[in-house]
Amino acid sequence: MSDSIQAYMTQVGQQARQASRQLASLPTDVKNNALSAIYTALEYNQQKILAANKIDVDNGHRKQLDSALLDRLELTPDRFKGMLTGLKDVIGLTDPIGVITDMAYRPSGIQLGKMRVPLGVIGMIYESRPNVTLEAASLALKSGNAIILRGGSEALESNKAIAEAIAHGLKSAGLPEHAIQVIDTPDRAAVGHLITMSDYVDVIVPRGGKGLIARITEEARIPVIKHLDGNCHVFVEREADLHKALPIALNAKTHRYGVCNAMESLLVDAPIAEEFLPRIAELYAEKNVELRGCEITQKILDDKVVAATEEDWYTEYLGPILAIKVVENLDEAIEHINTYSSHHTESIVTENYTKARKFIAEVDSSSVMVNASTRFADGFEYGLGAEIGISTDKIHTRGPVGLEGLTSQKWIVFGDGQIRQ
Amino acid sequence: MSDSIQAYMTQVGQQARQASRQLASLPTDVKNNALSAIYTALEYNQQKILAANKIDVDNGHRKQLDSALLDRLELTPDRFKGMLTGLKDVIGLTDPIGVITDMAYRPSGIQLGKMRVPLGVIGMIYESRPNVTLEAASLALKSGNAIILRGGSEALESNKAIAEAIAHGLKSAGLPEHAIQVIDTPDRAAVGHLITMSDYVDVIVPRGGKGLIARITEEARIPVIKHLDGNCHVFVEREADLHKALPIALNAKTHRYGVCNAMESLLVDAPIAEEFLPRIAELYAEKNVELRGCEITQKILDDKVVAATEEDWYTEYLGPILAIKVVENLDEAIEHINTYSSHHTESIVTENYTKARKFIAEVDSSSVMVNASTRFADGFEYGLGAEIGISTDKIHTRGPVGLEGLTSQKWIVFGDGQIRQ
Repeated sequence: MSDSIQAYMTQVGQQARQASRQLASLPTDVKNNALSAIYTALEYNQQKILAANKIDVDNGHRKQLDSALLDRLELTPDRFKGMLTGLKDVIGLTDPIGVITDMAYRPSGIQLGKMRVPLGVIGMIYESRPNVTLEAASLALKSGNAIILRGGSEALESNKAIAEAIAHGLKSAGLPEHAIQVIDTPDRAAVGHLITMSDYVDVIVPRGGKGLIARITEEARIPVIKHLDGNCHVFVEREADLHKALPIALNAKTHRYGVCNAMESLLVDAPIAEEFLPRIAELYAEKNVELRGCEITQKILDDKVVAATEEDWYTEYLGPILAIKVVENLDEAIEHINTYSSHHTESIVTENYTKARKFIAEVDSSSVMVNASTRFADGFEYGLGAEIGISTDKIHTRGPVGLEGLTSQKWIVFGDGQIRQ
Repeated sequence: MSDSIQAYMTQVGQQARQASRQLASLPTDVKNNALSAIYTALEYNQQKILAANKIDVDNGHRKQLDSALLDRLELTPDRFKGMLTGLKDVIGLTDPIGVITDMAYRPSGIQLGKMRVPLGVIGMIYESRPNVTLEAASLALKSGNAIILRGGSEALESNKAIAEAIAHGLKSAGLPEHAIQVIDTPDRAAVGHLITMSDYVDVIVPRGGKGLIARITEEARIPVIKHLDGNCHVFVEREADLHKALPIALNAKTHRYGVCNAMESLLVDAPIAEEFLPRIAELYAEKNVELRGCEITQKILDDKVVAATEEDWYTEYLGPILAIKVVENLDEAIEHINTYSSHHTESIVTENYTKARKFIAEVDSSSVMVNASTRFADGFEYGLGAEIGISTDKIHTRGPVGLEGLTSQKWIVFGDGQIRQ
C-alpha cells in the first residue's frame, strides 16, 4: 500500500472522527434541516448527477461489465426520484438518539438509566449501486453518525456527483462538511485502510456479494455488521391448514427470486407429503420452478423432481430452484434447519399451538415465523422505515438493521452527591 | 501450532456447539436445578479443590510468580465460600432467555416482536483467578450459552478440579456435559484456535491485563467483548456544591485504587480552582495521593504538585496518583474528556441544570454521571446481579456486562397465512 493512500485515509478518518463528535448531540431538527438541504441540492443537481452517471455507464459498456451490474449502476430519472423519496422517508423517521429508557433508582440512591447514542463513525463498503450512497449517508446523518463511503470504482463519477450535492447541502445547513465523505480514489488499498483504522472507524457495513463480505470480515480489525446468505426454510407441518400452506410456500419461493428472504428449501412433514407435494408442485410448475428432492419427494413427485444432493440443503439459489425434503416430524425439521440454514428466516405452517411454540423457541435464526411468508423479513415490513442491511450475526444487531442498529446505549446516572461506601 | 492441538480444539468447539443447541431453549427451572447440582458438587468437593489449588500455589512459589498474581491464584476457605455465594446469586437472577418484547401488529397483519435468545458459544480467556471459572460458567449456563474456558496455566490444577465438580453437577442434572468445558492443556496454541474458530464460537470474553486483551483483539476472528482501560474523569464545575464535590472527588480517587472505575484525572473549572484545589489537595495529602498538575494547578498548589506531562492525561494509574487540570469552562472539560478518556466513566459535579444536561448528552463514555462518584460504574451497583466484564466498546454491549450481554434477540412473527403482496 502506498504511503500517500495511507496518509489520505488517515486524514479522512480523523476528519470523520472530528465531525462525529459534533454530530453526536445535534438536535433532531438540525439533522432534518440538513437532510432537507441535501434533498434540495440533489434536486437542483439532477442533470449533473445523471450526466456523471452516464459517464460511468458508458465506461461500463466499454469495459464490458455484465448486464446485471450495468443495470444496478444506471440512474434513470425514475430511480433518481426513488432516491429522493427514500430521503424524504428518512427525514420522517423518529430520531433514536437521546432516547432515555429504564430510568430507575438504585438502593444507593443514584438514579440509573440508558441513553441511546450514535456509534460514531461508520465505514460503508458497497458495490456499484449509486443510490446506496445517498441511502447510507442519510441514515448515518439521521442517527448522528459520521460516515465514510467507499462505493465500487464503476460508480465513481456518479458517487462523486452525489457527494458534491450532499456536501453542498451539509454546508448550507451549517453542518461539518466531513460528516459524509466519499472516498474518491479507485485504489483498492483504500479499503484495506478503512477496515483496519480502528481509531477512527467504529463499525464497517459491507453491502455486496458474498465474496466481498467474506473478504472484509476476514481482514477487518473493526466490528462488521455483515449480511451473508439467506438460505431460508418453510416447514409445512402435519397439522398445517393447506389453505395457508400452499400460498405461503408459493409466495416464499416465487414472489421474488433474487432476494435473501426467499425460501430456498421446503420441508414437508411425512404424514401430509402425499397430499401436499403434488398440489404445490403443480403451482411451482406454472412458474417453471425447478425442484430438487430427497428420495421420498422423488417417489411422490416422480419425474417432476431431480435428486437433491447434500450440497443442495446448503444452497441459496437466488433463482427459480427449490430443494424439497420430507421429514419424519417437527424435531427433524428443527434439526435440519439449525444444521443447514444460514440463520436468516424460517417459517412453520401449522395449526398446532404447542408445535408453533416449540418451533419459535428452538429455531436459531434472525427471524422465526408461524403461518407467514419468509418474504416479510424486511426492514420496511418490520416498520424500521429504512434498512441499512440485514445482519446474519447475533452480536450487536440481528436481522433487518434500521437506524437503531447504528446506535449504542450509554449508562447515565443522576445523583445528589452519592459516594461508594 | 501442532495438528493435535487443532484437532482437540475443533472437537471442543463442535461439542460446545452441539451442547449450545440443547441449552438454548431449556426452561429456567432446569437451568437452576443444574446450577444447584453444581453448588452441591462444589461443596462436596471443597477439600479436593483446595488441595488442587495448593498444588498451583506451590508451583507458583517455585516459579517465583509475583505476589499479586499468587494472591489472585489462591483459594482460601473464605474465598471458596464467596464463590458459592456468587453461584447462589446467579441462581436467583431473572432468566433473560425467552423474554418477548415489542409485540405489535404491522399493517400487513403479521404480529411482530423480539425474543431474547442466547448467543450460543462463549469463549472465555482469563488469567490466574480460579473463581472466574465458576463465575463465567454459571453466567453462561444461566443465559443458555455453552462456554469454553481457558484460564491461565498457573491455575490449571484448580480449574481442572472445579471443572470436574461442575461436570458432576451437569451430569446429575441431566444436562449435556459439554455445556461447560475447561481447556486442560497449557499449550498456548489453544488460545490461537479458540479465538479463530468462528464456526464454533460466537463471542470471546477476555479478562485480564491490557496486554492480553489487546493481543486477543488483534488476533481474534470472532467478536470480542473487550474491556480495556478505565481512564475516568471527574469535572468539578463552577456551580458545583463543594459539599458534594469534595467527597465525590475523594471517593472516586481513593475508595479503591486498582479498579477501572477509579478517577484518574480531575478537571476543575477555572473560577473555583483557587477555592477548591487547596481543600481537595489537603484531603488527598492525608491519603498520600501524588498529584500531577497543569501549570495553573501548580501555581495554586505550589510544591504539593508536580508537573503533569501530556502522557499523564492518557494514563490509568491504578494507584495513588492523580492528574489535575484546570479548564476554562464546560466546553473545554468535555473536549478534554472526549480526547483523552478511555470512554469508561465520567462525572460532572454541578448544580446547573443546563450544564448537567449538556455533559450527559455530549460526553462519549459508557457511563456518564451527575453528582455521583465514578465508583458506581459496576454491575452490582447497576443491579445486573453479576458482571462478566465491563465493555469499553460501543458495539453489542457497553459498560458493565451482565446476563443480557450474553444474549441476542431474534425477531418472531405470528401470522394467519399472510403472504407478501
